Amino acid sequence: MPGVFISFEGVDGVGKTTQVNRLRAYALAQGLEPLITREPGGTPVGLAIRELVLHGIAAFPSFAVAGGSDVADDHDDLSPRTEALLYAADRAQHVAQVIRPALERGHLVVSDRYVDSSLAYQAGGRELTIEDIRGLSEWATGGLMPQRTYLLDMDPEQSHARLHHQLDRLEVAGDDFQERTRQEFLRLAEAEAQRYMVLDATQSPDEVWELIQEDFDALIARQRAQDASQEPVEGMEGRRL
Amino acid sequence: MPGVFISFEGVDGVGKTTQVNRLRAYALAQGLEPLITREPGGTPVGLAIRELVLHGIAAFPSFAVAGGSDVADDHDDLSPRTEALLYAADRAQHVAQVIRPALERGHLVVSDRYVDSSLAYQAGGRELTIEDIRGLSEWATGGLMPQRTYLLDMDPEQSHARLHHQLDRLEVAGDDFQERTRQEFLRLAEAEAQRYMVLDATQSPDEVWELIQEDFDALIARQRAQDASQEPVEGMEGRRL
Repeated sequence: MPGVFISFEGVDGVGKTTQVNRLRAYALAQGLEPLITREPGGTPVGLAIRELVLHGIAAFPSFAVAGGSDVADDHDDLSPRTEALLYAADRAQHVAQVIRPALERGHLVVSDRYVDSSLAYQAGGRELTIEDIRGLSEWATGGLMPQRTYLLDMDPEQSHARLHHQLDRLEVAGDDFQERTRQEFLRLAEAEAQRYMVLDATQSPDEVWELIQEDFDALIARQRAQDASQEPVEGMEGRRL
Repeated sequence: MPGVFISFEGVDGVGKTTQVNRLRAYALAQGLEPLITREPGGTPVGLAIRELVLHGIAAFPSFAVAGGSDVADDHDDLSPRTEALLYAADRAQHVAQVIRPALERGHLVVSDRYVDSSLAYQAGGRELTIEDIRGLSEWATGGLMPQRTYLLDMDPEQSHARLHHQLDRLEVAGDDFQERTRQEFLRLAEAEAQRYMVLDATQSPDEVWELIQEDFDALIARQRAQDASQEPVEGMEGRRL
């Protein structure tokens, strides 16, 4: 595909949004047309799914009163498989409706979280095997993976301290969960060292951004060199990179 | 598991609900404690998912305005994979929260649609392979299948004429789609003749029910004979069958 696909990963509070915004501004200044998106919730359908996963059925008061079956529900917890399938559904829609069309038009696509978050959070922390989650994600995305993944890494105690907003369901799961998730991210990065770039997120945002910018420049230069060596594609109305 | 699990299948308008209600009344009269449920939408979470699948994001006006990404969405169609994953999520929750707990307590569980509906509708009609859908369903349910499936079969032109209420997204897909789905149900029934009972739904409701009742009596008798031949389970507070 002609575009470039980048994801940002890491536990909550490590500064992903800050770096995504830096990258957006930088790409715009370079004359690129970046498409910035996120998971979960990168589509309208995905937003509804995100609410379900993060806040349960309480997010939809009209459905919280009575189920469609004889049994009254005394809890609305999502089973681990339900949760995994909902994330996969969000991702399938995100890829089909947003990411793949933009890449096919030659855009730079930057996603705040992607497949690796499911692998790290659900497999690392929620009692499903990583093969299960990987299989679901591959099926949901048709195998589409980023060319580069920036992993912002930090001790959970430090990242927790950075979070000021109200804690959601995942965040209240505690530091053990965050630490397991972090370790899972680091294992994923080690297994795919070519795709991943691990960044020490205890550095200042400027220091982190400097490292990302340098890598990003090289990534775009490689992509342009690769494009230049190929025959122009009939009917493509101009490259975005 | 100590309970008995029955599903009803068939395209819309063949009279599933009528027969489910007959079975409920009959089981109650026999002193059983039937749990009647359905897919999609057998749990509060499933109801929200069902709205998404049947009516798209329009069912959730607060999410229809803007997505979480840069692109404005000019359509809210679910991709085939998104739809399949949402049905699987509904099913995972249904099994974990409703069906499995009831079966473990020894109940009769009757579901209006289950796995076979996904196989027939999504694989038969929506460009995904049946192996894809079967794999998703098996993962979602942990392999839990009904002991008996009653398939109400009828020519789509006749079943369509029975539908008076407003047509939903699946129903407006037309008779071709209904006929493909019907043929897929019949293939599934042929492949698993021991689990399936195919009923000619052009008969009167009384005639259809008579055949179901006869089969149901035999099914319960077999289950009771099987239970009687086994050692009583420590800690089980009385069988429901």
